[in-house]
Amino acid sequence: MIIARTIQELQASLQEFEKEGKDIGFVPTMGFLHEGHMELVKESKIKTDKTVMSIFVNPLQFGPNEDFDRYPRDEEKDIQLARNEGVDLLFLPTVEEMYPNGNLTINMVVTKRTDVLCGKSRPGHFDGVATVVAKLFQLIRPQLAFFGLKDAQQVAVIHALVEDYHFPIEIVPVPTVREHDGLAKSSRNVYLSDQERLEAPYLYKALQKGREAILKGDSISGIRDYLTAYIENHTSGEVDYLEIYSYPDLEMVIEDQQPVIIAVAVKFSQARLIDNIIITQKS
Amino acid sequence: MIIARTIQELQASLQEFEKEGKDIGFVPTMGFLHEGHMELVKESKIKTDKTVMSIFVNPLQFGPNEDFDRYPRDEEKDIQLARNEGVDLLFLPTVEEMYPNGNLTINMVVTKRTDVLCGKSRPGHFDGVATVVAKLFQLIRPQLAFFGLKDAQQVAVIHALVEDYHFPIEIVPVPTVREHDGLAKSSRNVYLSDQERLEAPYLYKALQKGREAILKGDSISGIRDYLTAYIENHTSGEVDYLEIYSYPDLEMVIEDQQPVIIAVAVKFSQARLIDNIIITQKS
Repeated sequence: MIIARTIQELQASLQEFEKEGKDIGFVPTMGFLHEGHMELVKESKIKTDKTVMSIFVNPLQFGPNEDFDRYPRDEEKDIQLARNEGVDLLFLPTVEEMYPNGNLTINMVVTKRTDVLCGKSRPGHFDGVATVVAKLFQLIRPQLAFFGLKDAQQVAVIHALVEDYHFPIEIVPVPTVREHDGLAKSSRNVYLSDQERLEAPYLYKALQKGREAILKGDSISGIRDYLTAYIENHTSGEVDYLEIYSYPDLEMVIEDQQPVIIAVAVKFSQARLIDNIIITQKS
Repeated sequence: MIIARTIQELQASLQEFEKEGKDIGFVPTMGFLHEGHMELVKESKIKTDKTVMSIFVNPLQFGPNEDFDRYPRDEEKDIQLARNEGVDLLFLPTVEEMYPNGNLTINMVVTKRTDVLCGKSRPGHFDGVATVVAKLFQLIRPQLAFFGLKDAQQVAVIHALVEDYHFPIEIVPVPTVREHDGLAKSSRNVYLSDQERLEAPYLYKALQKGREAILKGDSISGIRDYLTAYIENHTSGEVDYLEIYSYPDLEMVIEDQQPVIIAVAVKFSQARLIDNIIITQKS
């Protein structure tokens, strides 16, 4: 596995791949790798010749009171995991390498449906995501790029980025990887206390109950209230949002419209967890 | 000359050029072509194998009370001029082709020095410029792109776009082309009355007087006031701004700093004209 820490090193390796006529698969991450990330790599290795992973905790997508500084990092272990999984090229830039003048002159700003879900809870978050992904797409120029569906709103933003700015890249959404008890794999799970770790699977239990209720035809607002109460009764967390929208448009659900996303965010003492399921309704 | 009206047609022709290993030069315009645009084409033909011109009056860079609807258009004459000048591929998209959903989901937003010059007078203008140029750069993927220095602030924004988003494109700024009496060539000059057309060369006369004063070492604020009065005394126009900054940073001028731009915008009855000169000071 080649490790590139600068854009120059990255592009030198990419030129070699290009000379050999290799298709590039790209897996952007913020590191502290878990099986969710590994699933993205597995998909990339099936579908492309060379897999490029980036590990970059992007300050632009964290709000001023969010966890940029204490976001978990373990570069040594990440390098080992990426190598074991067969990543071909690992891009590990510093903040200075990605933002040499401190800030960019031109930012990407998401203008649609940023008033719902994580867009509402985290103002500017998806602007930062779109900006860094646009930079990485331009630097790496992959044929395919792989994103986890746990961040379903992010996947919708990336689809819009590719469409609006004509990136010749196919976006491959990959299903959420879960622990045995259903908890979605996340780098932030390490911040749960033992007690909270026992409670956290109730997010996914709630989503499954929601799926049943949607398929049964219960009212959207009734389901939303019921699931919110269900999580608050079974965990010590505070429900940041629990919403049901059309996917990927994130608009109000019209009867029999499909697919539908149930998305939830819950604040525990040291970690905010998100999860979702996307349901294709019977018509 | 090939004419492409859709993205699909454009990309089919570009693929042919690419197969032949041709270097692409790109000249983005809003049409109503004049000798300023032709100078960009001439430069492109010297430096590249194939010249692609776009003609697109981009609604995103016009404010709600600006002249989008009445911006001058003459497609038939433009096609003839582009053909005569040796343009290889002319891209003529509709607004629907560039913005199929009405608006983009993600816009480019310029965050630095938009509070000066045209950025101040035309809020959102450079956001629209950056957005459409990013789209065109991605669609056309030229090696070189040519921009006129009459729009000096635009050239600075395009440089930032290329740097921030890693476009592998060299930006070639081309000096302003002028009428015999010094008036900068502009599509908007057709909106001057006969009397205003006689007055308009005083913009460039003022800029030349400003150059002398800068080189003589006069105070910046003194020069600014003198030139503003000079234009107001010699024309019926209203000075929108007359400013002196460092270039391309557009910051306050520090003594002996170089280069310096003197930039002016004047509102006549039906047209707002801009002009500038960039001065390399003796050190």
